[in-house]
Amino acid sequence: MALAVDVDGDVWDLSRPLTSDASVSILTWRDDAGKNVFWHSTAHVMAEALQSLYPDVKFGIGPPIETGFYYDVDLGDEKIGTEQLEAIEARMKELIKANSTFERKEVSKADATDYFNEKGDEYKLELIDELEDGTITFYTQGDFTDLCRGPHVPSTGVLKYPKLLTVAGAYWRGDEKRPQLTRIYGVSFPKKAELEEYLERVRLAKERDHRKLGKELELFTFSQKVGPGLPLWLPKGTVVRDTLESFLKQEQLKRGYQPVITPHIGRLELYKISGHYPYYSDSQFPPMMEDDDEDQGYLLKPMNCPHHIQIYDDKPRSYRELPVRLAEFGNVYRYEQSGELGGLTRVRGFTVDDAHIFCRPDQVKAEFKDAIELTLKVLKALDFEDYRLQVSVRDRNDPDKYVGDPATWDEAEQSIRDSVLEMGLEYTEVEGEAAFYGPKLDFMVRDALGREWQLGTVQQDYNLPERFDLWYTGEDNQKHRPVMIHRAPFGSLERFMGVLIEHCGGHFKTWLAPVQVAIIPVSDLFLDYAKEVATELRASGYRVEVDDRREKVGYKIRGAETQKIPYMLVVGQQEVETSTVAVREHRKGAQETSSLDDFKKRIATEIEAAIG
Amino acid sequence: MALAVDVDGDVWDLSRPLTSDASVSILTWRDDAGKNVFWHSTAHVMAEALQSLYPDVKFGIGPPIETGFYYDVDLGDEKIGTEQLEAIEARMKELIKANSTFERKEVSKADATDYFNEKGDEYKLELIDELEDGTITFYTQGDFTDLCRGPHVPSTGVLKYPKLLTVAGAYWRGDEKRPQLTRIYGVSFPKKAELEEYLERVRLAKERDHRKLGKELELFTFSQKVGPGLPLWLPKGTVVRDTLESFLKQEQLKRGYQPVITPHIGRLELYKISGHYPYYSDSQFPPMMEDDDEDQGYLLKPMNCPHHIQIYDDKPRSYRELPVRLAEFGNVYRYEQSGELGGLTRVRGFTVDDAHIFCRPDQVKAEFKDAIELTLKVLKALDFEDYRLQVSVRDRNDPDKYVGDPATWDEAEQSIRDSVLEMGLEYTEVEGEAAFYGPKLDFMVRDALGREWQLGTVQQDYNLPERFDLWYTGEDNQKHRPVMIHRAPFGSLERFMGVLIEHCGGHFKTWLAPVQVAIIPVSDLFLDYAKEVATELRASGYRVEVDDRREKVGYKIRGAETQKIPYMLVVGQQEVETSTVAVREHRKGAQETSSLDDFKKRIATEIEAAIG
Repeated sequence: MALAVDVDGDVWDLSRPLTSDASVSILTWRDDAGKNVFWHSTAHVMAEALQSLYPDVKFGIGPPIETGFYYDVDLGDEKIGTEQLEAIEARMKELIKANSTFERKEVSKADATDYFNEKGDEYKLELIDELEDGTITFYTQGDFTDLCRGPHVPSTGVLKYPKLLTVAGAYWRGDEKRPQLTRIYGVSFPKKAELEEYLERVRLAKERDHRKLGKELELFTFSQKVGPGLPLWLPKGTVVRDTLESFLKQEQLKRGYQPVITPHIGRLELYKISGHYPYYSDSQFPPMMEDDDEDQGYLLKPMNCPHHIQIYDDKPRSYRELPVRLAEFGNVYRYEQSGELGGLTRVRGFTVDDAHIFCRPDQVKAEFKDAIELTLKVLKALDFEDYRLQVSVRDRNDPDKYVGDPATWDEAEQSIRDSVLEMGLEYTEVEGEAAFYGPKLDFMVRDALGREWQLGTVQQDYNLPERFDLWYTGEDNQKHRPVMIHRAPFGSLERFMGVLIEHCGGHFKTWLAPVQVAIIPVSDLFLDYAKEVATELRASGYRVEVDDRREKVGYKIRGAETQKIPYMLVVGQQEVETSTVAVREHRKGAQETSSLDDFKKRIATEIEAAIG
Repeated sequence: MALAVDVDGDVWDLSRPLTSDASVSILTWRDDAGKNVFWHSTAHVMAEALQSLYPDVKFGIGPPIETGFYYDVDLGDEKIGTEQLEAIEARMKELIKANSTFERKEVSKADATDYFNEKGDEYKLELIDELEDGTITFYTQGDFTDLCRGPHVPSTGVLKYPKLLTVAGAYWRGDEKRPQLTRIYGVSFPKKAELEEYLERVRLAKERDHRKLGKELELFTFSQKVGPGLPLWLPKGTVVRDTLESFLKQEQLKRGYQPVITPHIGRLELYKISGHYPYYSDSQFPPMMEDDDEDQGYLLKPMNCPHHIQIYDDKPRSYRELPVRLAEFGNVYRYEQSGELGGLTRVRGFTVDDAHIFCRPDQVKAEFKDAIELTLKVLKALDFEDYRLQVSVRDRNDPDKYVGDPATWDEAEQSIRDSVLEMGLEYTEVEGEAAFYGPKLDFMVRDALGREWQLGTVQQDYNLPERFDLWYTGEDNQKHRPVMIHRAPFGSLERFMGVLIEHCGGHFKTWLAPVQVAIIPVSDLFLDYAKEVATELRASGYRVEVDDRREKVGYKIRGAETQKIPYMLVVGQQEVETSTVAVREHRKGAQETSSLDDFKKRIATEIEAAIG
């Protein structure tokens, strides 16, 4: 269905007459611009409904947003709750049924001012005041007229399935000294199925919110005394983290990475050479100053690379020992604005699964391929199946933004493309998104809720080897500059955990679950046997809990289900007599009798398939 | 042999007449005070030798030290090297043979001043100037007279085996604005065997210096750009550290510890509650201040306890879930004075194998026993066989130094003593050495060079639970205060590694060695077989390196010996044909043929015996 029209890059009403030759394309629900028109139009319908229910209402602004729209309104002393939202929504549906046309009208500044003066809407008057005469348009549908640039859908009838979602407070023009308005959020869809799917996704996202699950499953917490954005990992979350780390460490060992450990601070001098200080000071914790000398002090490390460079530089290197691959789960600290902090996806202290590969130019492609393969292995092990590769190259029209000569850049960019293609993979390319120090490859991963995240990254760097004057002795006995590759399959472990928790809804796969097996004796009589089973499983390296509470079996099973433990082993008279266990899988319900050996084989096979 | 005499707690010359009743005991070489007299007397003999060889020499001070003595002397433009040291030592031996008596003489301040005025020794004059008339004594042996409080041995003849060791510069009175004197270090023993044993120990200590071995074995390094006292762990050192950590983590898991991970910083507020800030600021890195508000900022964490307390305090606790044992290899930072930094034994950033046990008072003893048992297991696994337990209790005469009531202290101290005794162990008790917050148990460990180190520690704490208002709900449904136990079997992992490296001389046991097996093909023809063997060993979890250099076997074996790799597997024609390996143990020389399976069993058994 046509919603609006693109005229030479501007979006117009379908009904607006063309006055000259132009390149025109119809916008539908499939276009982002089409969706924006749809949602913006729904905002006007909500405004019309509000005006009919609250005649004294005054209006701020009502734009479309990423998904849906809002309108900021001044309702005097009226409060909007669930009941009111339902009433407004009901009125909106009537207005949509009426299928009123959206009519565009150009008005003079004087007429526009008169109109809102009469209506008594000081917010609109303030907006008009800032506009130039000759550029002002009104849109009217039914009994409602709004100051609006448009465009809009042809008539309200197409906005079939509206839904009002939440209410929040918002200062007029974002200024806390101005009045606080009521912001009403809503969304709308052309098809009922689409609305339902969307609401289900919202419900799931809420249910899977990692902050909520983090609390319920006792994975992590925050303390205001320690500081905002600084997660404290509780025992169960620590197990998951440690397991992720061990998995990657094992993989890295196989690939010839060498583990290192470096301090969490460095002298200002180090960061002056690397360029992190005094630049980027805004996003760093303030330095620790010794005496009053402004050159003497320490910085909490914002990145691990300068420290790893010190290790590379600790002895002369020969071409024969390259590539040197230094890996560390390195904690770094950045001073994000406190407004931006929330759960694990934005934090002030995080752990990068960092490695820096120092290699010869002829080794770059092979190292890139290996890093891609490793990242894909990580994503597979964690059930991230929907991802795309994005190559970020430089903006050729803005050469001053980048260090290094164009020929090297061309080669570097091409080697990334080649690496990807030779592995039989596809990529999209984004111009101008390269780091100033080199091109990079990002893994854009879609989670179970359809949201896209940038997780893993592999980057080439021609800058730091230069700044730190790194070298190796080549076969020709001359000094050569190594290339540096930064790579992190998880990216930030904290952020990755946040995304992972929501992706799997807290249902960690068996290899990763903080408790893998819950053993549930039917009564105290079978507690000894339960403990024997636990001991045997623990000896095989599994994480096991015995539920020794004096509660009914059903209660204990529900407890294990709530804790999302992958396996429950129920043991009673029959199991003791036959030396078996009754295996119950999380979320499956059915129980089946198995020997303990067979059960061990079963989970071993499952884990092997996931990460072997 | 009698060297001096203890008279009512003062040390006197044997020849000094008693003038009143006193409690007297003879001091010999076996007493620390006896050794001091011995070494101090040797310093006088060295001074006498110097005076005879360098008539213009002027003297500063010449005290005994922990082992031996030194004398600070002004030799004008004369330089002292090895040759000069030997000549001085030769002269000393002549003076000792002469067996001159040490004679004590009380002198007036005026006479003393006259004497050194005439001698032209401004240093002694400065010292005399600060003394009160009536307290000044001279000691004379042979041709040499010194201003000295004494006491001394009866005559030079007993100082049989002197040895001059090193020369250093030292500012007069430690003040860098005063003249720099020459400090000559020496030592002496009554028996030749004792001198030889000592010199061997010094030689070993030098050879085993962990700073030297750390470089040779590529374990760790420092970078001035990162900062003094902040070790960077190189790949091989990281493997050793990680292996130590894994070993302890496994042990802790078996004992019901729960791992946690916490940030490396905390808000000042946290440390105001804990009492770390603003107290102890001198030993901390300066705070990171936000804005100019002196209350708002962060501190690099000097201890892990406040963070673990936040985790305990994250939810209400019941008596049923106690003890809660939170464990973390937590990196902490302290600002040691740069003069005190050296290698790993004193650093500014270190890792505590920290755990905090929150328990009920009735659980303290069992927890203490478990912590003792764990620490002993750690010491055994690392071949520290010579240790003693030291219980540090409060000074009952100075109750203001401690928090908590005397009855609780009595109980706490007794429970530590009981824990130790019930385990069939012995302890020594030191009064006044308790922390202000509670009594503690320290493990005093003697290394292979006979030096004693305080390594593990277990401490009771009644202070922090109070300051942070921690509680649990008791069986009586009332709030109760938990007891906190701090314990760390390694103490600081860095310091422990430093001691361990010197204890084992870099010859890490197989379970801990960074490379456990070196595979040495006799020629390139057997490289494939060598790699097969390596793959199989790696699959069994061993750390293996194949020496694929085109060098002679002997050269490769020497390389592996230098790297102190526990096992070398030499493979050639015979080994390929019979599917065997020729096993050569580090420092053993002999080679014996073995199937790979038997070799794997052999090291598995060895490792099991060490840490199983």
